[in-house]
Amino acid sequence: MINFCSDNVAPVHPAVWRALQAADEPDFPYGHDKLSSRLDTVFSELFGTDCIALAVGTGTAANCLALSVLAPPHGGIICHENAHIEVEEGGAPSFFTHGAKLILAEGEGAKLPVEVLERLLDSIQPHVHAVQAHAISISQATEFGRVYTLEELAALGALAERRQLRLHMDGARFANAVAGLGCAPRELVEHGIATLSFGCIKNGGLNAEALVVFDTSLADRLRYHRKRAGQLQSKGRYMAAQILALVEGNLWVENARAANAAAFIVAEACRDRLLHQVDANEVFLRMSVEEQRCLRRQGFMFFSRPATATSPEAGRFVMGWHITEDEAEALARAVAKL
Amino acid sequence: MINFCSDNVAPVHPAVWRALQAADEPDFPYGHDKLSSRLDTVFSELFGTDCIALAVGTGTAANCLALSVLAPPHGGIICHENAHIEVEEGGAPSFFTHGAKLILAEGEGAKLPVEVLERLLDSIQPHVHAVQAHAISISQATEFGRVYTLEELAALGALAERRQLRLHMDGARFANAVAGLGCAPRELVEHGIATLSFGCIKNGGLNAEALVVFDTSLADRLRYHRKRAGQLQSKGRYMAAQILALVEGNLWVENARAANAAAFIVAEACRDRLLHQVDANEVFLRMSVEEQRCLRRQGFMFFSRPATATSPEAGRFVMGWHITEDEAEALARAVAKL
Amino acid sequence: MINFCSDNVAPVHPAVWRALQAADEPDFPYGHDKLSSRLDTVFSELFGTDCIALAVGTGTAANCLALSVLAPPHGGIICHENAHIEVEEGGAPSFFTHGAKLILAEGEGAKLPVEVLERLLDSIQPHVHAVQAHAISISQATEFGRVYTLEELAALGALAERRQLRLHMDGARFANAVAGLGCAPRELVEHGIATLSFGCIKNGGLNAEALVVFDTSLADRLRYHRKRAGQLQSKGRYMAAQILALVEGNLWVENARAANAAAFIVAEACRDRLLHQVDANEVFLRMSVEEQRCLRRQGFMFFSRPATATSPEAGRFVMGWHITEDEAEALARAVAKL
Amino acid sequence: MINFCSDNVAPVHPAVWRALQAADEPDFPYGHDKLSSRLDTVFSELFGTDCIALAVGTGTAANCLALSVLAPPHGGIICHENAHIEVEEGGAPSFFTHGAKLILAEGEGAKLPVEVLERLLDSIQPHVHAVQAHAISISQATEFGRVYTLEELAALGALAERRQLRLHMDGARFANAVAGLGCAPRELVEHGIATLSFGCIKNGGLNAEALVVFDTSLADRLRYHRKRAGQLQSKGRYMAAQILALVEGNLWVENARAANAAAFIVAEACRDRLLHQVDANEVFLRMSVEEQRCLRRQGFMFFSRPATATSPEAGRFVMGWHITEDEAEALARAVAKL
Repeated sequence: MINFCSDNVAPVHPAVWRALQAADEPDFPYGHDKLSSRLDTVFSELFGTDCIALAVGTGTAANCLALSVLAPPHGGIICHENAHIEVEEGGAPSFFTHGAKLILAEGEGAKLPVEVLERLLDSIQPHVHAVQAHAISISQATEFGRVYTLEELAALGALAERRQLRLHMDGARFANAVAGLGCAPRELVEHGIATLSFGCIKNGGLNAEALVVFDTSLADRLRYHRKRAGQLQSKGRYMAAQILALVEGNLWVENARAANAAAFIVAEACRDRLLHQVDANEVFLRMSVEEQRCLRRQGFMFFSRPATATSPEAGRFVMGWHITEDEAEALARAVAKL
Repeated sequence: MINFCSDNVAPVHPAVWRALQAADEPDFPYGHDKLSSRLDTVFSELFGTDCIALAVGTGTAANCLALSVLAPPHGGIICHENAHIEVEEGGAPSFFTHGAKLILAEGEGAKLPVEVLERLLDSIQPHVHAVQAHAISISQATEFGRVYTLEELAALGALAERRQLRLHMDGARFANAVAGLGCAPRELVEHGIATLSFGCIKNGGLNAEALVVFDTSLADRLRYHRKRAGQLQSKGRYMAAQILALVEGNLWVENARAANAAAFIVAEACRDRLLHQVDANEVFLRMSVEEQRCLRRQGFMFFSRPATATSPEAGRFVMGWHITEDEAEALARAVAKL
Repeated sequence: MINFCSDNVAPVHPAVWRALQAADEPDFPYGHDKLSSRLDTVFSELFGTDCIALAVGTGTAANCLALSVLAPPHGGIICHENAHIEVEEGGAPSFFTHGAKLILAEGEGAKLPVEVLERLLDSIQPHVHAVQAHAISISQATEFGRVYTLEELAALGALAERRQLRLHMDGARFANAVAGLGCAPRELVEHGIATLSFGCIKNGGLNAEALVVFDTSLADRLRYHRKRAGQLQSKGRYMAAQILALVEGNLWVENARAANAAAFIVAEACRDRLLHQVDANEVFLRMSVEEQRCLRRQGFMFFSRPATATSPEAGRFVMGWHITEDEAEALARAVAKL
Repeated sequence: MINFCSDNVAPVHPAVWRALQAADEPDFPYGHDKLSSRLDTVFSELFGTDCIALAVGTGTAANCLALSVLAPPHGGIICHENAHIEVEEGGAPSFFTHGAKLILAEGEGAKLPVEVLERLLDSIQPHVHAVQAHAISISQATEFGRVYTLEELAALGALAERRQLRLHMDGARFANAVAGLGCAPRELVEHGIATLSFGCIKNGGLNAEALVVFDTSLADRLRYHRKRAGQLQSKGRYMAAQILALVEGNLWVENARAANAAAFIVAEACRDRLLHQVDANEVFLRMSVEEQRCLRRQGFMFFSRPATATSPEAGRFVMGWHITEDEAEALARAVAKL
């Protein structure tokens, strides 16, 4: 059996295990340990700009804490209608923001086009009866495996500045986007990203994500929000250890490259079935329910996407850092034979 | 340096490490893995009654999720004025309950006496202008290292039933209470406890606590609350592994016994300085600021308690599972020499 | 100038003024006065069933309190994408429900068709990652001036029971719906409506709406919610006076009939411009921006509806209880001459 | 029967009735009417400084909206343990602030002494585990009928500035305080009051209070909060009419003077029974339960205060604007005869 259901089925990377055990001695709790105190510096170096990095336990917590400082309870946050925060987080954004509204927009590949956002913003009456937009949340890479180009990011940044909106990036697969674009991490966030959910768990970690705060004036509030949300771990050194193991020494990009490479193998081999261009580590393949069943009988695990008004039935195959070329090729061969 | 600041400075127990690494293979996310699916059964056996156990990442999350189903947003939860949920959780109970009020009561050793609760309840006007009490939260062991006796727990249970209040137990140090009382875990919860925060982190775990739900009608809501609070980890198998390593095979009680034993060594040696009777693994010793400074210079780390209207300055010494008899004796000797 | 912008531009009915002044003597506050204590009985008689009626200060408060007991914070409430609670209440439903999600559905005339609801409900994955539907809110009459037939209400009630959903009716224009259907008030709510916002302000009142609770098990929570939301007025007798003046003696239906009659005059005369069938007191007329400007120059005030993908530009004309036949005919003539 | 239970048992003042009926013509809703648009100017003149005034329906709403912009959800608001917001508002402050904590302080006559506040502030650990104070709320006049002197207000303002705390004044009886001090309204708020609940209902109004915002940078958020809380009335002109009738032409001070005068009559006559000095329109008289019963049998209505650790049983007598000298003297005589 090979499990392509999600990159979160992956095990923990050996280097992360080593870092965890190296952290295994008494130290001060609640982020006052030696490892946690390095996070800010390490991320500031990674991004070439002063920033604050807070360790939290889940991607949902990273996203929702990141949003909690970008919009007031009476405000709105624009996101794609297929965004993880809208579809998969059980209403958590509403909880962490005390009721801010997700304002949904459409766009190919789960990307938000600037012109769609302009029209949407123009349609919101500027009075107290309507919830006003205060922020935009984008996923990089998106839920459909697409990656915003640097030009698109620059255009979104310009829009946000023009409209006085704050920007959040859901980077559960930020590493895959960086690997896919082949550029410096800085380039993905320099156009106005205020808060970034920097994913580690899908990429070799155990249970720590980094919430990176580029607008450092928000950091103090976020520290209180993290505590109040039950996300400040007493043995925080074990979270910092995971994150540092991935980020110091480039393991995070290497893992993402491996995952992307597996996706590209499948994409290349199944080009005529691709529902979305493959920019990172997710592959959506058009296939009938019967074909899906056939694949599963051969031991390939994956999630089904139901047909919609505009797209046929499909399977979603996500590559973790641990998926080997052989496993990707085995999947490709099996699809080819359907 | 020996660190007595808290039991959460302790490292992770070797058996927990082994269990973590045994869990290190691909498996389904979000609690659908093989280990997570065993939690309910294991805790039902431990307590001799059907219950549900949910893994969460921090003690604050365990407490506050546990409270979130016991009182409505417009209601109140009675707790001791020194309770962790009131003093140390950054307002998290208010966040998770959407604003329920902590109604504070006094009592020696951070224990809630039934007669105090009766008077407090009588003083609340039964109309919409006053926040009504819906639940009581007790800590076992308490924040001052005291343990409710079985008789006291029975009396609290009877009160709660009589007054139609729900009961929560903050068991961050439940293991220490069980070890201290030398009784079956069941005996601590059988008098009406609806939800229990079963502490693991302070007792050899890494970053998983178990939220045990004895009123199983609340479990479905709690599963949604856990997700919405960003506490449902994708790689949940690593949380379950920690918890199971402690609970299956009695390690949790052994660790607590070791911690308590260290506390008893210090308590015995410093009897005339004790601020509170030592029932578990916390020791509060009266000592001047100068004496505290002297101890710290010798490499003993601990927290200070400022003088209050009713008690002098003191140091708080908490024993983790890892504190050896030698270390406890070293502390005792140093205090004796002050 | 004649103002058709909304029925809330109307003055207060003389009978309501008389009732207000008759209430002008010292009495006990917070609903313990003689008038407030009659509300439950009067509404129970009106609807032929035991119910509770709570006076509140705005339609938004009535709607949102009504919803606050039908869905938990982690749940969802299905409503039309043009529903007042979604479009015009500044996020209030999210505030009063502590973050419950409005799940949007489409339907002609702002009515929710059962088959649309079925499909929507089927599309919600029954797991913690998705917000589950707990309730449906319908507007009667709708925001587009349409009225659900008794058959449609029965079908919605059956759906709600089948799917275990609670039903709320936004009856800001309930009187207009009753007048339009020509049936007993009971018939509009007997198919499972749990809470009804019974509009008075648009229909001759000053600033009191009645929140009618048919599921009386919810009344106690609602009383606490009302207080906690700052909606329990100390001089509640003046709210009760308004409501009683309208409901005792049938003034509420007479006022609504007058408003509907004015709408029918316009509808009849402008049949070829009607955007929606006129069932109550709102008339939507297709007209260009230039035509709208021309009407306004003649002293007719109204709101514009921008063109959408499926409908052209239009003007919205709402008839208050005070609009005379002459005024309606004047509008009709002016439109005819455009 | 004469009802001294509260000043909210009073009827509406004739001048307010006249203003209400003068407002009785069609006008634009939601504060866009002619009367509402005058509020800012009228209050700016009254206080001799630019400010914004928002009409709301209850004192609870005025207080809680006023607080909602002074402390974040994770913050705390210091108030007296007998403050109305703590004791009588059913948890509304927690609702409107999304869970901010009321941090309670003691002080004679329900006044907050600066030195008590200093000690309290010093006792709050400045880290994320403790809820930090962000604001102070004082009642003027207090719940025990006392009035802060101008010196005390200046000292509180200095403290607030020194400690970077925002100041709210619950002025449900602001008029009585102004009348009691015999000074200009400006003098009560010029030492840093950011938001003031300016009471009208107890002082001759029907159901409108003014929320006066001196820190005008907060006004925009407050307008959204008011809408989202269901406190923006469609027929807002009837609220503005009440407020303007009281404030334009000094009726508000005259009414308060009359109420205070009645209180002074009783206070003078019953000097030896006074529980609190009488600075405004509330009189607390020590009297046994039997004496209270006797008074009630004679037709005097009032609330009882139970004995506490530091004070004996008492009756609370509150004078509305409508209480005549004869009525006050009748009460005084009846008490004298007890």
